[in-house]
Amino acid sequence: MQRKFMLSDQDIPEKWYNIIADMPNKPLPPLHPGTLEPIGPEALAPLFPMELIKQEVSTEKWIEIPDEVRHLYSLWRPTPLYRAYNFERMLDTPAKIYYKYEGTSPSGSHKPNTAVPQAYYNKQEGIKKITTETGAGQWGSALSFACNHFGIECEVFMVKLSYEHKPYRKVMMNTWGATVHASPSTTTEIGKKILAEDPHTTGSLGIAISEAVERAATNDDTKYALGSVLNHVKLHQTVIGLEAIRQMEMAGDMPDVVIAPFGGGSNFSGLALPFLRLNFDEGRNIRCIASEPSSCPKLTRGQFRYDFGDTGGMTPLLPMYTLGHDFVPAPIHAGGLRYHGAGVIVSQLLRDKLIEARAHDNVEVFEAGVQFARAEGIIPAPEATHGIATVIAEAERCKREGRSEVILFNLCGHGNFDMKAYQDYFDGKIVRHEVTEAEIKASLARLQTPTIP
Amino acid sequence: MQRKFMLSDQDIPEKWYNIIADMPNKPLPPLHPGTLEPIGPEALAPLFPMELIKQEVSTEKWIEIPDEVRHLYSLWRPTPLYRAYNFERMLDTPAKIYYKYEGTSPSGSHKPNTAVPQAYYNKQEGIKKITTETGAGQWGSALSFACNHFGIECEVFMVKLSYEHKPYRKVMMNTWGATVHASPSTTTEIGKKILAEDPHTTGSLGIAISEAVERAATNDDTKYALGSVLNHVKLHQTVIGLEAIRQMEMAGDMPDVVIAPFGGGSNFSGLALPFLRLNFDEGRNIRCIASEPSSCPKLTRGQFRYDFGDTGGMTPLLPMYTLGHDFVPAPIHAGGLRYHGAGVIVSQLLRDKLIEARAHDNVEVFEAGVQFARAEGIIPAPEATHGIATVIAEAERCKREGRSEVILFNLCGHGNFDMKAYQDYFDGKIVRHEVTEAEIKASLARLQTPTIP
Repeated sequence: MQRKFMLSDQDIPEKWYNIIADMPNKPLPPLHPGTLEPIGPEALAPLFPMELIKQEVSTEKWIEIPDEVRHLYSLWRPTPLYRAYNFERMLDTPAKIYYKYEGTSPSGSHKPNTAVPQAYYNKQEGIKKITTETGAGQWGSALSFACNHFGIECEVFMVKLSYEHKPYRKVMMNTWGATVHASPSTTTEIGKKILAEDPHTTGSLGIAISEAVERAATNDDTKYALGSVLNHVKLHQTVIGLEAIRQMEMAGDMPDVVIAPFGGGSNFSGLALPFLRLNFDEGRNIRCIASEPSSCPKLTRGQFRYDFGDTGGMTPLLPMYTLGHDFVPAPIHAGGLRYHGAGVIVSQLLRDKLIEARAHDNVEVFEAGVQFARAEGIIPAPEATHGIATVIAEAERCKREGRSEVILFNLCGHGNFDMKAYQDYFDGKIVRHEVTEAEIKASLARLQTPTIP
Repeated sequence: MQRKFMLSDQDIPEKWYNIIADMPNKPLPPLHPGTLEPIGPEALAPLFPMELIKQEVSTEKWIEIPDEVRHLYSLWRPTPLYRAYNFERMLDTPAKIYYKYEGTSPSGSHKPNTAVPQAYYNKQEGIKKITTETGAGQWGSALSFACNHFGIECEVFMVKLSYEHKPYRKVMMNTWGATVHASPSTTTEIGKKILAEDPHTTGSLGIAISEAVERAATNDDTKYALGSVLNHVKLHQTVIGLEAIRQMEMAGDMPDVVIAPFGGGSNFSGLALPFLRLNFDEGRNIRCIASEPSSCPKLTRGQFRYDFGDTGGMTPLLPMYTLGHDFVPAPIHAGGLRYHGAGVIVSQLLRDKLIEARAHDNVEVFEAGVQFARAEGIIPAPEATHGIATVIAEAERCKREGRSEVILFNLCGHGNFDMKAYQDYFDGKIVRHEVTEAEIKASLARLQTPTIP
């Protein structure tokens, strides 16, 4: 009854997996919002260090992880892979359920997997300061941690809703030396503009991105870092799945279904892309399912077209499943999933039917989270509960069909900073947030960006 | 540059180490507070299940860990042992610093090491409900987690100061199904009495123990569980040190100095006692240092004599270093260290000069905690920062003396639920809390319990 499958420091992957090399249809190019012409890597130079831009557009299948990054990874990586015996018993399912647990990092989620290399490459290129946005606070914490290690100043724009829900995330970032603003803030032009239009806005990831990008774009020694969506972020996160494959082999199993929560795509990609490689290279047929909130259903109900990555329209146009870049999702506690669009790689994979998606209601996911906590001990972050809801649905299908399938999911972070969310759930304050068809249509109708046939 | 030394599920110790078998001077017996006669195990029967009472008085050197306990341990055990390269560099010390990290448990500290077997033995004996106290919330969380697993009801009396400082700990306990009261509460006689005398008391561990003991003593199907102080608790915690010895061997080092924070003795004992065995059995000379707050300095400034384990005087009299059972420590954030006495085993070891003790000021420990967080990433619980302060002092001594000693400490928990404490520190609200000689004398003078020559 081995429960936990562990690797050692030496087993930290030496290379990230770049799925672009294997994709049957490569992602469409980003477009300049003015000319609508494809843009080259040089357009990203004001925001990112060159090494990350190279990774963003690389078609190499494997990209080497620098030793210094691997050494810092070893503060928490390799992360454990668990067999969820207790959860299986609670669900009374013939399915075998495994989870990869990314909550053992200093900031408590998978986000440092990319924060560390991003800070590292910025440091290599002499950058003094990095700005970023954060939704639930997980990405901001991770980047604060990484910047602190490399001696880089860090400025974080935190979605106002989360800033108010999760004050302790702010203190965590401060402990690692970062400056934190509630977003929209009065420290940027776009922030002031949005506050003037709606002083009571709860903010959104899209708005916070606009603020952080504006700050970096208008300061020479400052770069910007994004915690999801972009190709290089997904690339860095593949350490999760690469480790998980080895650990599943240790367990003597291989998943039939791989599940992860979906915000912009970083934790889903981290676990799923290396398993998709097995589909490509070894002819396997592993299903990969992205789990999103039904209040922000870009994968299940959005449109595949060009759109901005941020609310303010400062980024290049990206080919993505989107609800429209000014869509402001309901104020659910899973702040990390309140993003209007899906990253380019995942969008193309979904369009090509190489992955699947499911949406789950706000109440359903907290039920799933409490069930999991009572079975396995770990209290999951609200983002992670979305994946658990999909696991429950798949485990119930296995029971109906009498199949002992192997399910693996990404428990992308713990809920230690989300206790207010659980308190709200116990107090009956968590409510359903369905988006109407009319709302989605109206949001998409506002877009003036190119459609994709 | 291996940073992390990991063991696998199979390496979880099969036996706990009972130091009583090896102690040159055995602990003096507990006394009945009325007759002052030594009491036998049967006196504990109203509060504890028989198996734990047997362990409490056992003189067997090794006690088997039940398979079901080892299997639940595997949710987080074996815990990692780290070489603190970054911290060494920050301190510019020739010392080699290692830490055993107990924060990977579901509740975030070492406490489940004993919560799990305690709940297990209660379950074996058909107990339906367990009551307990909690200071910082770590023990209450751990017992809630363990009781939830075994289907036992759990009622927690949480020191009022912590209840107010750490509301999220309460939600965590609720998530695992426990009931939580701020202590002193109006649900017990002793609670009502203390509130009548001082309605604004911040509470203390001693008071909370009295309430939990009263509830168990007055209900037939209810037992009580203690998270520190008692012999069986220290016994269960020895899994920490037993694992650490194997991990130090993997690292090719053996500590010269072993350090752990000290409240009642559970985390100190967990790490240190198995290393003391090496002193006994192999003639080694490993120094073991307990780190306590200077606001509650029972080891460094208390008296070795008989005293009650609780404020209300409901427990047997125990031979311990004490500040007096009605001593109410200053409201420091390290709630787990606000206890008037030291466990019996550790008290005897200190009296016999087999271990050492250090006290650290409240401001000094937060400085140490922030330093550590910035070096190693993990933000330590306020309790744990006390051990870190001792580590810094020893590392500085090594530097002065030019010695490359090996230091190992117990990072007994993370600070994810202690962000208010760090906020207070950044806001300059953490102040020194020295106890005067007169205060200690006055508290001890109130004791009517037997002295020990």
